[in-house]
Amino acid sequence: MVLDPPLPKPLFARLTVIGIGLIGSSILRAALGRRLAEEVVAYDRAPEVRTRAEALGLADRVAASPTEAVAGADLIVLCVPVGAMGAAAEQIGPAVAADAIVSDVGSVKASVARALAAHIPGHAHIIPAHPVAGTEYSGPDAGFATLFKNRWCILTPPEGVNPAALERLEDFWAALGANVEVMTAERHDLVLAITSHVPHLIAYNIVGTAADLETVTQSEVIKYSAGGFRDFTRIAASDPTMWRDIFLNNREAVIEVLGRFTEDLIALQRAIRWEQGDALFDLFTRTRAIRRSIIEQGQETAAPDFGRAHD
Amino acid sequence: MVLDPPLPKPLFARLTVIGIGLIGSSILRAALGRRLAEEVVAYDRAPEVRTRAEALGLADRVAASPTEAVAGADLIVLCVPVGAMGAAAEQIGPAVAADAIVSDVGSVKASVARALAAHIPGHAHIIPAHPVAGTEYSGPDAGFATLFKNRWCILTPPEGVNPAALERLEDFWAALGANVEVMTAERHDLVLAITSHVPHLIAYNIVGTAADLETVTQSEVIKYSAGGFRDFTRIAASDPTMWRDIFLNNREAVIEVLGRFTEDLIALQRAIRWEQGDALFDLFTRTRAIRRSIIEQGQETAAPDFGRAHD
Repeated sequence: MVLDPPLPKPLFARLTVIGIGLIGSSILRAALGRRLAEEVVAYDRAPEVRTRAEALGLADRVAASPTEAVAGADLIVLCVPVGAMGAAAEQIGPAVAADAIVSDVGSVKASVARALAAHIPGHAHIIPAHPVAGTEYSGPDAGFATLFKNRWCILTPPEGVNPAALERLEDFWAALGANVEVMTAERHDLVLAITSHVPHLIAYNIVGTAADLETVTQSEVIKYSAGGFRDFTRIAASDPTMWRDIFLNNREAVIEVLGRFTEDLIALQRAIRWEQGDALFDLFTRTRAIRRSIIEQGQETAAPDFGRAHD
Repeated sequence: MVLDPPLPKPLFARLTVIGIGLIGSSILRAALGRRLAEEVVAYDRAPEVRTRAEALGLADRVAASPTEAVAGADLIVLCVPVGAMGAAAEQIGPAVAADAIVSDVGSVKASVARALAAHIPGHAHIIPAHPVAGTEYSGPDAGFATLFKNRWCILTPPEGVNPAALERLEDFWAALGANVEVMTAERHDLVLAITSHVPHLIAYNIVGTAADLETVTQSEVIKYSAGGFRDFTRIAASDPTMWRDIFLNNREAVIEVLGRFTEDLIALQRAIRWEQGDALFDLFTRTRAIRRSIIEQGQETAAPDFGRAHD
């Protein structure tokens, strides 16, 4: 996959990315590669990450402090874990320019919207965003410019958002290669609970269950992991901090969907115990239709990748 | 991936494969390609599958009845769903030659061993087997000769098995490209419950739960399926008959592992509800170690594939 050529004219005067991990460094690479801002500035609270970002040439300038980073920026994107969003917003708040767009890339949106609203001054435009893309790797070296290509990016603007600001952010994400969608933060959090958060929690859980079995050795689990288990472990290697924050910040929706999942699973277990083969067969047949729809709608790739992009 | 060249001398005089689906047709293709038997015979109870097998040239001879198929065979491999194993064994029983090896490819072993023992005459050698390989496709067109290459094949011989017969079957699977392992049927069923059966059940279940949510439309689930959900649907498109039979025939081990899984999941849900971030973080960190072991032991492939081989 290749990045499109640079834009004839940058979309922003100064883009600032706070947090230089997988997503932040991918935005930086793409923004530099396509020259989406006249100046691209980066900041990370870890000094060694800042040093690494400079060595990798991830920005026109790596700032030494959050306030220095966001000063004069007309687009600020917070790429920190969801749980660190409030603290980051508090740090940059006083330095955010009038009419700047303040956005983020968190996987949960209602709690992030609240955290930003508490600290970002009213003269800026808060528009939370979530690019549905990632890999199981993290850090400034893990990013790549085409991470967002043909992936969805969901924007969750608050009511009464400035339409011009929204359009500029939509253009930014489209320039990163994403398909942009707009919905409320609450709807986003519910849709992602079922399509991403609960699947990840289940994967973490089955890997934990397997590790704790006394009757089957860990070496056996690993040896025969190709039978299905292995692909759950790929998810279960995702960044622990990021995922802890997602579950803590999307509590209600995750617990609601988990409750239904467990209810359904116990019904399945009962069907197995009572040898109700027809109930099993019916479910296994019904789920085929959903699979078919995903293929028909072009959401399938050659390789299953749990939402991870391939470069 | 390519198939190794034909053997200098076939291992068997006559190989008979009963059931020409994904696994059966893959064995046939590999056995013909490497000439593992002087004569390769196939049978399927569905007339249209027999016709298709002839058209595809999957065997030296497609037999018209199960008894005709197994007559004179020194290796018989039953490739029918686990639940059909008893009926198939009953049909071929009277025609099985002395010293013939009777094996299968079922994903459950203790119940299959019982089904075979009930119908196969004592003058034959019963050695159940399970190649841990497959795709989500089924039928005679779905198979391919390299399906078993570098995959595990687990043999579960009964106590007192004829050592020469066991060695011949080991050689057969090694010639198909598999890494052969020997264990008891009971151990196999427990190991596979955690590494394959329960992961599949969970995948079927989450797809069903998503389909039943009234608050999120099916089109939204499909649209954002790349966030993790999509790869569960791949599993949930596997053959319904085969999987129904697996769960019904490995009831005890599946229910045991499921019970632990649910217990662990409810503890996780409670940690989310009570915002116990450390408990979540600890699990998410611990599961990384297992992932690392899988990579270190070379059980990882570039693409996650839920145990499905890539041709």
